[in-house]
Amino acid sequence: MNSPTATLLVSCPDRRGLVAKIANFIYANGGNIIHADQHTDFAAGLFLTRIEWQLEDFNLPRELIGPAFNAIAQPLQANWQLHFSDTVPRIAIWVSKQDHCLFDLIWRHRAKEFSAEIPLIISNHPDLNDVAAQFGIDYHHIPITKETKSQQEAKQLELLRQYNIDLVVLAKYMQIVSPDFINQFPQIINIHHSFLPAFVGANPYHKAYERGVKIIGATAHYVTTDLDAGPIIEQDVVRVSHRDEVDDLIRKGKDLERVVLARAVRSHLRNRVLVYGNRTVVFE
Amino acid sequence: MNSPTATLLVSCPDRRGLVAKIANFIYANGGNIIHADQHTDFAAGLFLTRIEWQLEDFNLPRELIGPAFNAIAQPLQANWQLHFSDTVPRIAIWVSKQDHCLFDLIWRHRAKEFSAEIPLIISNHPDLNDVAAQFGIDYHHIPITKETKSQQEAKQLELLRQYNIDLVVLAKYMQIVSPDFINQFPQIINIHHSFLPAFVGANPYHKAYERGVKIIGATAHYVTTDLDAGPIIEQDVVRVSHRDEVDDLIRKGKDLERVVLARAVRSHLRNRVLVYGNRTVVFE
Amino acid sequence: MNSPTATLLVSCPDRRGLVAKIANFIYANGGNIIHADQHTDFAAGLFLTRIEWQLEDFNLPRELIGPAFNAIAQPLQANWQLHFSDTVPRIAIWVSKQDHCLFDLIWRHRAKEFSAEIPLIISNHPDLNDVAAQFGIDYHHIPITKETKSQQEAKQLELLRQYNIDLVVLAKYMQIVSPDFINQFPQIINIHHSFLPAFVGANPYHKAYERGVKIIGATAHYVTTDLDAGPIIEQDVVRVSHRDEVDDLIRKGKDLERVVLARAVRSHLRNRVLVYGNRTVVFE
Amino acid sequence: MNSPTATLLVSCPDRRGLVAKIANFIYANGGNIIHADQHTDFAAGLFLTRIEWQLEDFNLPRELIGPAFNAIAQPLQANWQLHFSDTVPRIAIWVSKQDHCLFDLIWRHRAKEFSAEIPLIISNHPDLNDVAAQFGIDYHHIPITKETKSQQEAKQLELLRQYNIDLVVLAKYMQIVSPDFINQFPQIINIHHSFLPAFVGANPYHKAYERGVKIIGATAHYVTTDLDAGPIIEQDVVRVSHRDEVDDLIRKGKDLERVVLARAVRSHLRNRVLVYGNRTVVFE
Repeated sequence: MNSPTATLLVSCPDRRGLVAKIANFIYANGGNIIHADQHTDFAAGLFLTRIEWQLEDFNLPRELIGPAFNAIAQPLQANWQLHFSDTVPRIAIWVSKQDHCLFDLIWRHRAKEFSAEIPLIISNHPDLNDVAAQFGIDYHHIPITKETKSQQEAKQLELLRQYNIDLVVLAKYMQIVSPDFINQFPQIINIHHSFLPAFVGANPYHKAYERGVKIIGATAHYVTTDLDAGPIIEQDVVRVSHRDEVDDLIRKGKDLERVVLARAVRSHLRNRVLVYGNRTVVFE
Repeated sequence: MNSPTATLLVSCPDRRGLVAKIANFIYANGGNIIHADQHTDFAAGLFLTRIEWQLEDFNLPRELIGPAFNAIAQPLQANWQLHFSDTVPRIAIWVSKQDHCLFDLIWRHRAKEFSAEIPLIISNHPDLNDVAAQFGIDYHHIPITKETKSQQEAKQLELLRQYNIDLVVLAKYMQIVSPDFINQFPQIINIHHSFLPAFVGANPYHKAYERGVKIIGATAHYVTTDLDAGPIIEQDVVRVSHRDEVDDLIRKGKDLERVVLARAVRSHLRNRVLVYGNRTVVFE
Repeated sequence: MNSPTATLLVSCPDRRGLVAKIANFIYANGGNIIHADQHTDFAAGLFLTRIEWQLEDFNLPRELIGPAFNAIAQPLQANWQLHFSDTVPRIAIWVSKQDHCLFDLIWRHRAKEFSAEIPLIISNHPDLNDVAAQFGIDYHHIPITKETKSQQEAKQLELLRQYNIDLVVLAKYMQIVSPDFINQFPQIINIHHSFLPAFVGANPYHKAYERGVKIIGATAHYVTTDLDAGPIIEQDVVRVSHRDEVDDLIRKGKDLERVVLARAVRSHLRNRVLVYGNRTVVFE
Repeated sequence: MNSPTATLLVSCPDRRGLVAKIANFIYANGGNIIHADQHTDFAAGLFLTRIEWQLEDFNLPRELIGPAFNAIAQPLQANWQLHFSDTVPRIAIWVSKQDHCLFDLIWRHRAKEFSAEIPLIISNHPDLNDVAAQFGIDYHHIPITKETKSQQEAKQLELLRQYNIDLVVLAKYMQIVSPDFINQFPQIINIHHSFLPAFVGANPYHKAYERGVKIIGATAHYVTTDLDAGPIIEQDVVRVSHRDEVDDLIRKGKDLERVVLARAVRSHLRNRVLVYGNRTVVFE
């Protein structure tokens, strides 16, 4: 199992023989499949699959796998991604003032719960500089005002390029990222502190308290230009009661936010998430 | 524990000595308290309590408990309700075509999970007449159209009076009850098939599917003139995945709806629910 | 999707090309795969798969699918089962005095949550005869004492044969089935009213209360000759508190038992469960 | 609410007038009750209560509250504890090699989720010295072998005295503490990485994997001389599937262990836990 692996994520219009075609491509080249999972969305007429195989003894050199698979994929009108397990993605964590998700992601990184590098933290506040320093991660304080937003986002984009970042994780960043930014850098995972689509936007715990709900939630999703409306990767909830004031909701919610965001980031980094339309398939 | 009990549900502006005052009232008259629970909503400056005691050896006759307590309550500007455990409330279950909540409530009633009588089922469709007959409950088919609504609601009200109903349970009734009706008969519990406030109104499972949520929920609440916005009594959730189509959400949701509605009805019937503002305290 | 389907459940020593081999077998004969899921147990060196395809336009007649697949399976040392979705399995429900699981299974059957026939109820008590009658199911009262057990089990076996039963569901049967019986009729699902392996054997709710647990559970498993130790299909839990007495644990537990047993029976009937060793793979 | 408070935890044989007696004691001395919760264990014939009031304007000086209450408690044969909210308890965290619970407790302490000081970490391994240093906490490495155990426990006891410790938290300490030690220092909370009483003792995740459970759990409990059998404070669970290997159970379990231990420690520190027999009442 420690051999590096290749993973294909494929979606295409459903038709006969897709499983066989893809499996044959791998088998014919000597690959040993260690994970294969299919899903058919009958309403959408779509076939979606994740297939992972060991590269050891695989006959095709890495650089040829994509082109070779493309020859199969094109007639099927397939969208596909190819990932190698020994490619280590680089993450930028964006925070505001709260440290719980940041601490948690750093701890999980150290505990090797996911394979990635975390070279960069960006914040609109200076508060978490010490945490970054404590773990030896570069911290860039980029304050944002209404007036400076587009200019500051240009700086942020420049930093992402400079640090060669693959994924931005909004770990309670508390700022809306502009459509323009998202179009230039679409790989962003956000944690929203409510059970979406309930309580979109600001102050969801206050709104939850006002509404008198008996359960609160958290939602990790890809960021799109539609606020809090991107494809959901993971959600979880915790029970609250009349004894819980807003502060208790915030405290209980932090435990949710940590674990929901971490699960989403881990699934993404293990190439388990396939987005189609505004939905995700999470291949567990 | 089998002695009948009296229960006071009290809410009033918070001040010193409330617990002592109420406990003394019961102790001074020889009552044995078997459940006492307090809650203070500091934001609202409100004291809320539920206190239950055995009537055996209680010195005050039942008809005097209310007036005697009122003498204490008035100077405190308290709202209060008094209930006796051997008063058996009478429930009308309103249904449409789906039978799962109806079956479940009837089964729980037979299993003595709550103390009540269920003499009446009202429906806008004839479909569940057989179920009613099977369990010997009167079934009234009252079809509703836009044009006939107010006239038919008058019939429904008349039936509630005739059957001496204390509580209406909307067990997937799928119709909006008019504000006028609610004002005349405000004791109504509804089960909504979503995790409110997400997916208010019609077709919540379809909307949940469209949104691609990873968890679905159900909510039991008191009905107010504000659609799906009344005080929430109970909520619960279940995990779904990309494999679940709308029909699976509906199927999984039924299990939620049954148990969430049953818990809410049971809490209400055991006089455990105190409404204030648009919130509930559920004294467990 | 309404075309009948065939499903193969296969387990065999892991080796290269298994996915391709099985997918090719189906594709080569014109089958349209609608569900394919693989799992590799690396510790056991075992490959396990479930693959389902539409029979419409499949070139092999049904009676030849098994023999044809066997030619592929034998060299792989594979264990396999073949099921057709339009074969309606016949279930016998065994009960004692409690009716909640029985009612629930009957309701789900009527609601078409699973495709099966329920022609037979067996009980060691006469109590639930009325429920059986209400739904038109044959009820056989077979009392069991220590002395009569083997003789009565012979009667039970005879009934299973006579009614052509495929699956026995112990829906709170509360009796231990003898190893001899199990060897003759191994397709038995039991619901145990605890979170196994905690509280094996009798009176688990009393034991849970004594231990002061904060959560109780229920477990559905295949019955083996080892008491409460067969392969687990499904488990679920519910939170309890110091306020819950044994009777409350029993009441809350019933809701768990119903839903856990129902999920297990449904997974089994949809040919989603593959047993290996003392474990199950449940292909969702 | 920011006034310091006093809290009484009382248990005594049930009898009439207990709520009134205790409430009167506080009211007569001018105290404002902000939390009062009662529980009656009818099987044990025991009354248990937690009552918390503001010390502002309370007529009795602190040092007299205990003696004054004792005059009421003695005739009732009551066990009672008195706590003041501004007394800051001192915690020693004992660890082995795993850092997740340690990190988590430190983070929560910094986030002010509970009021306590953490001046001391004890470990049988040197591994987590760096974490301690990072947060400025004293770290004592006290290796344990079968032969040195009693001598090393003497050192540990000495440290607890020296640091004036009120509570020991075994945050994955992985060693059995001797009965002799427990008798001398009984205030110990442990996190056990299973849903007790399932999988007592070593390697619970391996045992859970072997048994093929579909849910794993974690349990926080007071340590008694009976291994993993002390009064349970909190438990929680997470779902696992056939895809989860032992390493996945360990990883998922860590998230449980963190949150279950933290909740238990927080409840204890807020004087919400009352132990009687081998059970706890957790007044929420």
